[in-house]
Amino acid sequence: MTIKAYGAQAGDRPLESLNITRRAPGARDVQIEIAYCGVCHSDLHQVRSEWAGTLYPCVPGHEIVGRVSAVGAQVAGFKPGDLVGVGCLVDSCQQCAECDDGLENYCNHGVFTYNSPTRDAPGHTLGGYSQRIVVHERFVLRIRHPEAQLAAVAPLLCAGITTYSPLRHWKVAPGHKIGVVGIGGLGHMAIKLAHAMGAHVVAFTTSDAKRAAAKKLGANEVVNSRNADEMAAHAQSFHFILNTVAAPHALDPFFNLLKRDGTMTLVGAPPTPHPSPQVFNLIMKRRSLAGSLIGGIPETQEMLDFCAEHGIVADIELIRADEINEAYERMLKGDVKYRFVIDSASLAG
Amino acid sequence: MTIKAYGAQAGDRPLESLNITRRAPGARDVQIEIAYCGVCHSDLHQVRSEWAGTLYPCVPGHEIVGRVSAVGAQVAGFKPGDLVGVGCLVDSCQQCAECDDGLENYCNHGVFTYNSPTRDAPGHTLGGYSQRIVVHERFVLRIRHPEAQLAAVAPLLCAGITTYSPLRHWKVAPGHKIGVVGIGGLGHMAIKLAHAMGAHVVAFTTSDAKRAAAKKLGANEVVNSRNADEMAAHAQSFHFILNTVAAPHALDPFFNLLKRDGTMTLVGAPPTPHPSPQVFNLIMKRRSLAGSLIGGIPETQEMLDFCAEHGIVADIELIRADEINEAYERMLKGDVKYRFVIDSASLAG
Repeated sequence: MTIKAYGAQAGDRPLESLNITRRAPGARDVQIEIAYCGVCHSDLHQVRSEWAGTLYPCVPGHEIVGRVSAVGAQVAGFKPGDLVGVGCLVDSCQQCAECDDGLENYCNHGVFTYNSPTRDAPGHTLGGYSQRIVVHERFVLRIRHPEAQLAAVAPLLCAGITTYSPLRHWKVAPGHKIGVVGIGGLGHMAIKLAHAMGAHVVAFTTSDAKRAAAKKLGANEVVNSRNADEMAAHAQSFHFILNTVAAPHALDPFFNLLKRDGTMTLVGAPPTPHPSPQVFNLIMKRRSLAGSLIGGIPETQEMLDFCAEHGIVADIELIRADEINEAYERMLKGDVKYRFVIDSASLAG
Repeated sequence: MTIKAYGAQAGDRPLESLNITRRAPGARDVQIEIAYCGVCHSDLHQVRSEWAGTLYPCVPGHEIVGRVSAVGAQVAGFKPGDLVGVGCLVDSCQQCAECDDGLENYCNHGVFTYNSPTRDAPGHTLGGYSQRIVVHERFVLRIRHPEAQLAAVAPLLCAGITTYSPLRHWKVAPGHKIGVVGIGGLGHMAIKLAHAMGAHVVAFTTSDAKRAAAKKLGANEVVNSRNADEMAAHAQSFHFILNTVAAPHALDPFFNLLKRDGTMTLVGAPPTPHPSPQVFNLIMKRRSLAGSLIGGIPETQEMLDFCAEHGIVADIELIRADEINEAYERMLKGDVKYRFVIDSASLAG
């Protein structure tokens, strides 16, 4: 089955309309007509070959929502017409300790939604900037939000789970003082989620212009991290800091804000390392620096249900597929509040 | 009361015999005749002013064992004749959350055994390279080892608790695979302690010459961390790695050895930062990099009792006080198995 998609033929070429094929659904597959797909910074890194190993043609997109159009003979959990989502993973080994624990995101053989080896043509996975996708049922999520919110649900599949998972893993709870560094696609979700979990949320930004917006998202306080006095006022007071900034930056000023036994978790991976942290800052209060990658499939469903229950969606700007190259340029300038989402109907064009 | 000590008058001067004074014991003080004092790498850093802020005269030493010679009127827990120890701390605020939790080591106002402000002459604390010390009872530890082992007990007060505390905090247990990086004063204790806790212990060294010695200390396996093939054979297999190396070195090869959710904890603080770790190595398996500083007083007592029960002491080389300058030079070359201990009787000389 040939369908329309949007992708690039090389790292130095713009994205353009492409024809790709999808497999017919196997016994445990779910076939989904894509309604919307969020635009993640990873899409840009991958399609421009800023990370190693991009395979072309490259069709990015791993914040996918849509409606089931067919299911395999052995699929019991989904039926045509269901509202569903697909995130960063479309398969895994399904038999290692990580998969057994529902942490498919840490499986050594995870199949990412784009640029991973597959038996399907053209030999690597093609993502959600496309009209349709076929995915093993284990990696399909149920969406319980009202259909009118569907476009704004799409970014939950990556930006949502990437921030929800560490907030839960490090046991953010009512009464905790939680920091969120960076107010972009990931950061704006982290503020909403930590607020809904009952935490006292402090947003860190380098731009005074973002203060009002961060409060509107649910931040109790906003700190300009370039202001040493503002930072000093929060010394040794945080239980947990979620750092969503993917650009290299000094981590030490944030370590100083953590209480004893506090953790700062990074969910952004800079192209070059951050300046090396001072070991004393870790030792003096038994602090930790950690990383976290997306989340497992059961936890992704939990996150979607939590968001549906709390009325949480992303703040988005809906675009046509043929606006994607311009959207990338705006994303690089931070000119988006806070996530672009492609209206998949525009692919037919 | 004037007593003999060994210390330096300036950062570029050798240590020499000095006369110092100790206060008469207050109501809650314990006066201790020092029998032995271990020689920690921190002593050398401090006395040579390699860290900021060394106050002179500087008398190092925070691995102190001896016998109680007098107690204040309100001291109930100790009496003259008791075998006791003093570690890195001689006081703290005793009223913050850290002190309330028995983690005086993380108190913002901890008084270290040397080079901390005090009302006693000369205005800063003077350490264990001396005949006597007077310490608030809260910071005095009971020694239950046989007296014949007393000299070898001394290093437990810093090297022992500095490694015991993180092994306990990160819940090292039977069946766990635990790494110990560096086989020196701290590392040799970590191997013994982790082994006694029932873990499968792998020692990492850059010197093949240390293989046999590490196994004798209790390591189940020894890996030369400069051998990429040996390292690769242990990929993603460790629950916890305790890194005792204070010299700057690449951390990434060790992160790759941690399982999902594994932690590497640093107890050595290099004078300049380690090469910055790759964030991907943390993110891909939700790994953590942490630091740990000595241990609290209740945990130090627990460690001493654990060691007495398991027959654990340090491997030491006993020296006279006037051999300390030579001992420092040998320590810098790693030429000690594994801890120098000063026989305090030699101070009288």
